[in-house]
Amino acid sequence: MKKFSWPQDVVLPPGDDASGLWFNGLLITSVDMLVWSTDVPPGMNHYQAGWKAVVSAISDVASKGGQSRYILLSLALNPHTELEQFEQLLEGAEKASHEYGAKVIGGDLNEADTTCISVTVLGCAKNVMSRAGVKPGDTLAVTGLFGKTFAGLHAVMNNVKADPGLLEAIYLPRARMREGIALASSGGVSACIDSSDGLGESLYLLAETNNVGFVVDRLPIDPLAEKYCVDNWLNRVDAVFYGGEEYELVYTVKKGWENIVENALSRVGASFIRIGRATAMQGVQLLDQGRVVEISRKGWQHFQRRR
Amino acid sequence: MKKFSWPQDVVLPPGDDASGLWFNGLLITSVDMLVWSTDVPPGMNHYQAGWKAVVSAISDVASKGGQSRYILLSLALNPHTELEQFEQLLEGAEKASHEYGAKVIGGDLNEADTTCISVTVLGCAKNVMSRAGVKPGDTLAVTGLFGKTFAGLHAVMNNVKADPGLLEAIYLPRARMREGIALASSGGVSACIDSSDGLGESLYLLAETNNVGFVVDRLPIDPLAEKYCVDNWLNRVDAVFYGGEEYELVYTVKKGWENIVENALSRVGASFIRIGRATAMQGVQLLDQGRVVEISRKGWQHFQRRR
Repeated sequence: MKKFSWPQDVVLPPGDDASGLWFNGLLITSVDMLVWSTDVPPGMNHYQAGWKAVVSAISDVASKGGQSRYILLSLALNPHTELEQFEQLLEGAEKASHEYGAKVIGGDLNEADTTCISVTVLGCAKNVMSRAGVKPGDTLAVTGLFGKTFAGLHAVMNNVKADPGLLEAIYLPRARMREGIALASSGGVSACIDSSDGLGESLYLLAETNNVGFVVDRLPIDPLAEKYCVDNWLNRVDAVFYGGEEYELVYTVKKGWENIVENALSRVGASFIRIGRATAMQGVQLLDQGRVVEISRKGWQHFQRRR
Repeated sequence: MKKFSWPQDVVLPPGDDASGLWFNGLLITSVDMLVWSTDVPPGMNHYQAGWKAVVSAISDVASKGGQSRYILLSLALNPHTELEQFEQLLEGAEKASHEYGAKVIGGDLNEADTTCISVTVLGCAKNVMSRAGVKPGDTLAVTGLFGKTFAGLHAVMNNVKADPGLLEAIYLPRARMREGIALASSGGVSACIDSSDGLGESLYLLAETNNVGFVVDRLPIDPLAEKYCVDNWLNRVDAVFYGGEEYELVYTVKKGWENIVENALSRVGASFIRIGRATAMQGVQLLDQGRVVEISRKGWQHFQRRR
């Protein structure tokens, strides 16, 4: 890890048994493991795997309103991993950390049949958002449009030519940290979750935690994804709700706070994308092109199981 | 994770995307991964694997003088894992956390061909010890005697009957947290490291970091391990230096501070075990029964490779 610059607020030197740092305030921490055999799509290189592992962990912190500060990497590498691949993995992890204001300060290296990258994020927050807090009538909104990972994964697994934007969604995903901080500081968000397990699963998790349901009255489909679905006879609704590994934030807004939240987002250059509302009735329904579609809970499955 | 009691200083509820907690001061954090295929000896059950994974990570924090407070568990389970085994693993992890003053506050669950348990420890410290700081002439000391894991592992891999104390060393290892805190607060320790990669490797790491060497003038062999070695024609020196997965602390004491360090340890019921001194000359030498033995650097190998 000597190639990384060393943050000045870190007490112990690189390579010591543990990391020591001064921290005052609200610490937001999360861990997420990327397992090569289930989480790495065909064609992904080591740089991208390192990037994705870090972004995926940072997304959890972002969804609570946290700013990532420090990263610990715990690696188990397949014994056939070459030194250059290992270095690319570290570089991807380091670049993703830097992109979201964090530094890699420690880690652990092991060997396993399938490469596993466990990423711990330590972040700070002034305001925090929980999954809990939705009330019926709250506005449902998201930080971006869905379907790109569904389309991108379909393309790489079926050798279909796809727009680079769809491939970037699966190879170099992005977390919504600025948006998370803006949402948390707006004071108007009643609950927030990321969409790493798919929009459908996120809505069911929010519904379950808060004993509510959701009506989605606008299908938040990305234009590139929609075009891909039309061209390849794929279901647009599936693309939006069951893609997974998208790191948009899914949140609810207290009644009357929509403008305040929208302003908070616009100050960081982000959009308020209203897609529906919370209801007292259980379940998740989509109003699409005049029809009512029940969105069932399929959870999210590793891409391998979908082959 | 609902079966665990929830600490009051933790802000976000169980099962949220990330953990939030208030923290003020010196944060000591470390991550360590246990990989089933390389780190789990024959006969170890899931409870013990969960315990060992946590102890191993806590040992790193203990070696810096930290008190563990919070644990994040990142699991990739073999798909054949049964629910009961999963629960036992969690119970072992939880019990080990509790034993060292920490609580499991979050985690992540995945699937992989070989079970991997990545443990992140967050701890606090008033005083911290680094690997760096040894000066020639410093006294070399340890928190306990060595050789039990070497003997215990030999016993289980060769179906030799062994004293329960040797088996406990491999199945339910212990970290030296009280000792680490006492050492750090004594003010007399110039450097400290744990012995998870074997006493030999720890000495080489200390030597390398500080540009010194070591003379060990007393072989710190555990009596049970010594008896096992004699009974089974095993080399006592190998047992002490190349066992690995022992979680004793290996530390150096500034000249003239020996009594202060000894008193600090005795206040927590621990012993000051002097085993040698740091030298300006490179390398690690053992003075044993009138002979000078060069201790070579073999590193530490997973038990599988020693079969």
